[in-house]
Amino acid sequence: MKKNIAIAIHGGAGQDSPYIREHVNDYKKGLKEAIEHGHKLLSKGAKAIDVVEATVRILEDNPFFNAGRGSALNREGEVEMDAAIMDGKLLMAGAVSMVRNVKNPIELARTVMHYTKHVHIAGEGALKLAKIRNLELQPNEYFITDHQRDLLLEETTPTGHGTVGCVAMDEFGHLAAATSTGGLTGSLPGRVGDSCLVGAGCYANELSASSCTGEGELIITSVIAHKVAMLMELKNMRVQEACDYVIRNMENPIPGDVGIISVDNKGRIAFSFNCQRMHRASIDTSGKMVVEVYNV
Amino acid sequence: MKKNIAIAIHGGAGQDSPYIREHVNDYKKGLKEAIEHGHKLLSKGAKAIDVVEATVRILEDNPFFNAGRGSALNREGEVEMDAAIMDGKLLMAGAVSMVRNVKNPIELARTVMHYTKHVHIAGEGALKLAKIRNLELQPNEYFITDHQRDLLLEETTPTGHGTVGCVAMDEFGHLAAATSTGGLTGSLPGRVGDSCLVGAGCYANELSASSCTGEGELIITSVIAHKVAMLMELKNMRVQEACDYVIRNMENPIPGDVGIISVDNKGRIAFSFNCQRMHRASIDTSGKMVVEVYNV
Repeated sequence: MKKNIAIAIHGGAGQDSPYIREHVNDYKKGLKEAIEHGHKLLSKGAKAIDVVEATVRILEDNPFFNAGRGSALNREGEVEMDAAIMDGKLLMAGAVSMVRNVKNPIELARTVMHYTKHVHIAGEGALKLAKIRNLELQPNEYFITDHQRDLLLEETTPTGHGTVGCVAMDEFGHLAAATSTGGLTGSLPGRVGDSCLVGAGCYANELSASSCTGEGELIITSVIAHKVAMLMELKNMRVQEACDYVIRNMENPIPGDVGIISVDNKGRIAFSFNCQRMHRASIDTSGKMVVEVYNV
Repeated sequence: MKKNIAIAIHGGAGQDSPYIREHVNDYKKGLKEAIEHGHKLLSKGAKAIDVVEATVRILEDNPFFNAGRGSALNREGEVEMDAAIMDGKLLMAGAVSMVRNVKNPIELARTVMHYTKHVHIAGEGALKLAKIRNLELQPNEYFITDHQRDLLLEETTPTGHGTVGCVAMDEFGHLAAATSTGGLTGSLPGRVGDSCLVGAGCYANELSASSCTGEGELIITSVIAHKVAMLMELKNMRVQEACDYVIRNMENPIPGDVGIISVDNKGRIAFSFNCQRMHRASIDTSGKMVVEVYNV
């Protein structure tokens, strides 16, 4: 019997670039691999919180995406990664920021949620926790790709922001969200973006789960993922309507590139973005798969 | 002519303790000094964003409060401070986390907002920024008080969470919020609380400005400051009603000690807390001053 499950992912949003056009099939392949893996887990009865973690891990391991391997470099040429995960049923979350050397920051975020009394642990303290829990570490060279080196040294304004994320509804109707990023090319060291901030780049409750991507500073000050949840809870908006209201509101436009993926507790999937591309994929409750990069 | 201005502050919320009972007049004196200073600035025409920064600085400098001097010690006996500031008119924010040696973390948060393209900078990167901007630094000993040493070594569960915050409406009807903390006694190193998270412990827009205190992990996952703003925007609740709905909702109680201060764009001040005490003070649009610690 077919299960009532749904999953969506993103791999960043923003403007188009020659690099993205050249590698569009690599991106689609990576998205397809991740969404199929996550959906398979759901169909076997896995919980949403486990599925979003496992799916984001695949995107972190793929060097084409700006998260884990392939992370953006800050202005000192270093990788500092952020991630967050949230269980909508339990209203529990875990987050990490300024993480170095941890192969899968999303696993460390889950570790914060599962093994500590805290929600968010940053920097050296996060690395200490990873060592205590025996998470896989990698040397700096593992994370750095030639493409990210190129972006840092480009003379034009870097366009290297990007993120990965996953939202899922499991067969019990429970929701979860996960977001992970290598941050913003050329940022000041220590910059914390929206991805690891509960309510900004990642949020889940009993009604919906959302993951954001784009210009992180705007996502933080607009508290976008939580705003979508509030529009659904307080205004009875449907999930696509709530996402469009926040992201594509032409009367009060967000002054920068932003995208969001969401799923509600009926398994309805929403994508919304205000820019040229959002790397994205989904498999809905009917089993229909979508894998896209550009506007369609 | 009397100006239409309003200001409120808090100095932490939670359960009572012998130390607090013994020092209640010291706390009230510190609250009174800070609120009078902030109100005087407002009455001279200062902008809300400048006033909340200046007022929080006074509370940071007072060793009785858990922020700046007098910060809580993490389980390694070290001080790591968090702070955030937000301008409700411009919808701009600055935040810092895991800050060491910076005398006034709220000044550093303002620096992030004013001088960088980012919203949030953490750890070593935040210290680098403080040095570039020539902010006042202090050795570790400056921040550590005997009271905080005692709390860390108490055998019972430490009750040393605490925060300071300020919200204000200036004569132009603009709003701002600021929150600063030394964190949670005995926390894991690198723990980031709600105080520096935009939407959780600090939020301001054109309708209201809020600062939270209490069990930070609950404030993060409930995105409390932004939730109050959304209840006012989407449900037309008044500011006191919105705060009580979030903090004191008996049907869906927050499972821990939480408090909030808010001001709306008419200068109406709200306090709400679900525990034995919230150190607090205000001067409303009529000029009436309140300074309290316990329930009244």
